[in-house]
Amino acid sequence: MKIEQWFSENQNEDIKLSVRIKSHVFTKESKYQRIDIFDTDALGRILILDGCFMVTYKDEFMYQEMLAHPPLMAHRDPRSVLIIGGGDGGIAREVLKHDVEKVDLVEIDEDVIQAAREYLPEMSSSFSDKRLTIYNQDAFDFVDGKRKYDVILVDSTDPVGFAASLFSDVFYMKAKETLNRGGIISTQSGSPFMNPGYITKAFKGMKQYFSELRPYVSFMPTYPSGMWSYVMASNSPLEMKSEFVGRYINGDVFKGSQMLPQFVRELLSKA
Amino acid sequence: MKIEQWFSENQNEDIKLSVRIKSHVFTKESKYQRIDIFDTDALGRILILDGCFMVTYKDEFMYQEMLAHPPLMAHRDPRSVLIIGGGDGGIAREVLKHDVEKVDLVEIDEDVIQAAREYLPEMSSSFSDKRLTIYNQDAFDFVDGKRKYDVILVDSTDPVGFAASLFSDVFYMKAKETLNRGGIISTQSGSPFMNPGYITKAFKGMKQYFSELRPYVSFMPTYPSGMWSYVMASNSPLEMKSEFVGRYINGDVFKGSQMLPQFVRELLSKA
Repeated sequence: MKIEQWFSENQNEDIKLSVRIKSHVFTKESKYQRIDIFDTDALGRILILDGCFMVTYKDEFMYQEMLAHPPLMAHRDPRSVLIIGGGDGGIAREVLKHDVEKVDLVEIDEDVIQAAREYLPEMSSSFSDKRLTIYNQDAFDFVDGKRKYDVILVDSTDPVGFAASLFSDVFYMKAKETLNRGGIISTQSGSPFMNPGYITKAFKGMKQYFSELRPYVSFMPTYPSGMWSYVMASNSPLEMKSEFVGRYINGDVFKGSQMLPQFVRELLSKA
Repeated sequence: MKIEQWFSENQNEDIKLSVRIKSHVFTKESKYQRIDIFDTDALGRILILDGCFMVTYKDEFMYQEMLAHPPLMAHRDPRSVLIIGGGDGGIAREVLKHDVEKVDLVEIDEDVIQAAREYLPEMSSSFSDKRLTIYNQDAFDFVDGKRKYDVILVDSTDPVGFAASLFSDVFYMKAKETLNRGGIISTQSGSPFMNPGYITKAFKGMKQYFSELRPYVSFMPTYPSGMWSYVMASNSPLEMKSEFVGRYINGDVFKGSQMLPQFVRELLSKA
């Protein structure tokens, strides 16, 4: 007799991605969502929020690097960075590889921070960096145009439920006011293949407040379809000012990720 | 009571991708492999060989376009094309969009051709094109340096089992002899994330016989990890000579797909 445990994400009603689980590390129903952490042979430790893959140790570098570094490579001299969401600490870890002075992380769910602190040290070790301050509140309220930043990174869950406001027009208007001159915002914008509405929503919303837009794509095996997108926006030119080389990104990838598959280009030309 | 039917591909022992099935269209144990065709709501009709996704109507354009068009865009004047494998007809369909004179398709498994002819018209309609000839034999023997082509496309299954010889050094040597002056070969080379050994094997093998190598990557949601790779090789320069615009590819994608994630670049630098 052989007993196997599998975790499956229902990417939609008809498609699921499953991974065999070695052990169950942590579960909590927080005020906002269900948090699960498992250990697996194939993907290492994994963080699941409301039944969706958020982080696996095997591929998290792809997403974290591609959200964090492009705007930091495009900014002439990024000193201050606001991370929205990102409670696992992975985006902060990448940002802190740059010579920045101040990083604020606004994660609505304190329980995600606590779980990451205890069970995801490869990412949450960034929490002990003196440049970082964590705020447990709704980022929609936090982004108010009073505190200012050079770069804003929106590492939210998808635009359904409590994260929907982070893809709203009002949010992008407030984000514009919250950026210093020359500032850059970048947001994750879902899978153009599985959920084309997410990137078109972000793109249309940002277009109202920013003159320069750079949608880009990257591989992310454990997210639906493995094809992920981001939109970077600014009211200053968005060329690469300095190169950062990680495990995924480099100067070529900065450029190549903006060379969009034709169906994504056409999707956005109608947005 | 609700009865659901799902097809799952075990991408390895620990990871599987599943799709809900609407109806079972066709099954046959051929001389070489098990062939299954299903209808699904999420992905349309799907072709499964030995339990692995080969084609889904929803995303096959990504793979077919990225194997077929880059070498045809890089060749100055492609007249003759050899397709190895590709029994579903999708690669032939893409190749025949170019102004070519002669396309030979060498598929070892006649039953795949028959199944495609009957059940996959969106791809196998290419079989009725007068420029196309189908050969049911082992491509390893067919590629003998006597017949010559401008472009060879290796649309094989992965380098395990009966397709392993199509990734061997001897095969690449014979392929070189089978190309006209200025000729180009391109092969699928698996997922650099899930099976890094496939692309390194193809790259090392080709490097012995070709002076110009262009590994490149593209999204392919229903293949393991959604990240797929290809290697294009020639003894002539491999710049883009003409642009083809499809649903996935365009001139930017031709270039951008060669801008490799750092971990793929490092993988190949050791190959």
